[in-house]
Amino acid sequence: MHLPTRLSRVRKRIAEADLDALLISYLPNIRYLSGFDGSSANLIVTRDQLYFITDFRYITVAESLFANTSDLDFTLVTVDLSYDETIGNTLRNLGVKHIGVESAHFTTRQYLWLRDFLGAAPKKTNSVCLVPTERIVESVRLCKDSYEIDLMRAAAVKLSKVVLEILPKVSVGRSERDVAAEVDWTIHRMGFERPAFETIVASGPNSALPHARPSERVLSSGDLVVLDCGGVYDGYCVDMTRTVCLGIPDTRSRRIYEAVLEAQAAAISAIAVGVSLGDIDEAARNSLKRHGLADAFGHGTGHGLGLEVHEEPRISKRRPQEKTNHSVETLVEVGMVFTIEPGVYISNFGGVRIEDDLLVTPNGYEVLTQVPYEFVSA
Amino acid sequence: MHLPTRLSRVRKRIAEADLDALLISYLPNIRYLSGFDGSSANLIVTRDQLYFITDFRYITVAESLFANTSDLDFTLVTVDLSYDETIGNTLRNLGVKHIGVESAHFTTRQYLWLRDFLGAAPKKTNSVCLVPTERIVESVRLCKDSYEIDLMRAAAVKLSKVVLEILPKVSVGRSERDVAAEVDWTIHRMGFERPAFETIVASGPNSALPHARPSERVLSSGDLVVLDCGGVYDGYCVDMTRTVCLGIPDTRSRRIYEAVLEAQAAAISAIAVGVSLGDIDEAARNSLKRHGLADAFGHGTGHGLGLEVHEEPRISKRRPQEKTNHSVETLVEVGMVFTIEPGVYISNFGGVRIEDDLLVTPNGYEVLTQVPYEFVSA
Repeated sequence: MHLPTRLSRVRKRIAEADLDALLISYLPNIRYLSGFDGSSANLIVTRDQLYFITDFRYITVAESLFANTSDLDFTLVTVDLSYDETIGNTLRNLGVKHIGVESAHFTTRQYLWLRDFLGAAPKKTNSVCLVPTERIVESVRLCKDSYEIDLMRAAAVKLSKVVLEILPKVSVGRSERDVAAEVDWTIHRMGFERPAFETIVASGPNSALPHARPSERVLSSGDLVVLDCGGVYDGYCVDMTRTVCLGIPDTRSRRIYEAVLEAQAAAISAIAVGVSLGDIDEAARNSLKRHGLADAFGHGTGHGLGLEVHEEPRISKRRPQEKTNHSVETLVEVGMVFTIEPGVYISNFGGVRIEDDLLVTPNGYEVLTQVPYEFVSA
Repeated sequence: MHLPTRLSRVRKRIAEADLDALLISYLPNIRYLSGFDGSSANLIVTRDQLYFITDFRYITVAESLFANTSDLDFTLVTVDLSYDETIGNTLRNLGVKHIGVESAHFTTRQYLWLRDFLGAAPKKTNSVCLVPTERIVESVRLCKDSYEIDLMRAAAVKLSKVVLEILPKVSVGRSERDVAAEVDWTIHRMGFERPAFETIVASGPNSALPHARPSERVLSSGDLVVLDCGGVYDGYCVDMTRTVCLGIPDTRSRRIYEAVLEAQAAAISAIAVGVSLGDIDEAARNSLKRHGLADAFGHGTGHGLGLEVHEEPRISKRRPQEKTNHSVETLVEVGMVFTIEPGVYISNFGGVRIEDDLLVTPNGYEVLTQVPYEFVSA
């Protein structure tokens, strides 16, 4: 992980936004720029300095973060009574005018407090202007660097092994919760730090709920079972879904499964550098439409993966402004990593979702997760 | 869980704050008032109406939430393109003037967008005033109702069983991560939905880090091992810590352990209705001071538990304004549930933390977690 490169990319965007400094309060962004994986810290990036603000609990960790990067002008600031005051004082002492905050992550309370605090500076100092910003670090995180790609590729191999190991154990007579606990245990054994989200094992009618929680329901013959799980590996998330039918599927289940599989293949085929994300979503949606199932697919086709299990890019329906103005659409770039996961959900019947993780390459894509598409479970 | 009672308490506070409505965007608060446990929803509480706003994924769930509460004037609103716009339009159509937002949870982006959106209403409608609020629902959640107490009591019994089962398995030759995975598996087997946080197994020098993450370090003879774990049971969190020494402890380890145990007992003895939280913290701190260990205890003495694993009340050092003005201190009330968890951390040596969950009762307290304090592990 080469922090100075990431930092210089962020500084470029800070300069483009006409800011003198950016207060970074969102933990995944702080981790991206420092490696810090604790629960409380703030980072201030100026044109040439870096302030890392944390409390007692993380001082030892924070000191080690930048121990080997002597080329960074780095200051560790310890919080005494409150983060707000420590951040406010540090910003005030920078002596700069335009300071960005991450408006999607900074709370209203923090914003109003800091605005008042900085506005109340003594008259002789220049007044500070707090600027709400969007996506400064996120836009850099959008395309993964080689360190991240190596990690995520390895993580996807591990997750595929988890799913391959679990699928034969999805069997009649076990409860959803029991299977989910075994998934989590397997995720741990495979070397993940933790599941990336609450594992989904949704059977029978529960499979019609895209975000079902594992219940005490016992798997029965004929059930559709959606297994959706993810793992965090050295901070990075991978995520995959397979759907199986226990025993002999009825015609409707089989028809839905084949339509979803076709929609996934259509979306994957649409991936290419320079294509808009909306086109990928549309490929899945149009494919389902041909089977009369478009209305049963109510979520997006995919989402980015990285330090967060849901991050940019979002592969979903074009928003109205994107329909009228194609220039505001996000285009596929080399190094993006995202899921493709169309699904069909029929209330009181069941659902099917199939999900893989893909990396965009100069020539197209690489499928990171590798588990055969086998619908009928023994 | 009697939602109308909770709701009427929140409405009382809304009225006290001179608000016509409160937009609730914080998921634990939404869950408290509706039972909803999904990942995306908003709730608008007016003096006599309730609007539940969610997207496609959760409509089925949301419909069932209020199915049996016909006494509530309840409207389900489905998000079409964006939560922001759906919320904005719903608020605009209320025709009221003062609308509170939860400033500790609402993002700066949401706040600025909504303020502009509501401010841009046609002139003939009354302009809406967006009011940043603090702790409206949290202040009601502070004291648990009987439904919550029953749940948390049962959860604490389960967690105690987990720890009792695991402690004999904390043994020389196993890695921290291996033990942590077994803890998580046991948490699942015991019927918890999931661990309440990333399980801590911190051994030897790692035990000096209050928030260490399980590493590949192998437990060795003479190690101090801090085991800190929690579980979520029907949405409610419990949390406990034991520290053991593998093999024969040296004098220093034993001295630290006994000091922490004494500090915990001192803090627990201080619990009584009407006492200030600062007094409880001070009891632990003064006890450690007598052993010359006050500086090695850098975190708070305890935190509230409930729908969140860290919630109010916070039992920590008095803030400056609390020292000068005792009337602003929070006092212990019947129904509060919190941890008492003093610790001592010596860099490059090790640490000890002992944590239990307590419920405040009219006559004092009830210790919910029940695991003997045995320092020396076989």
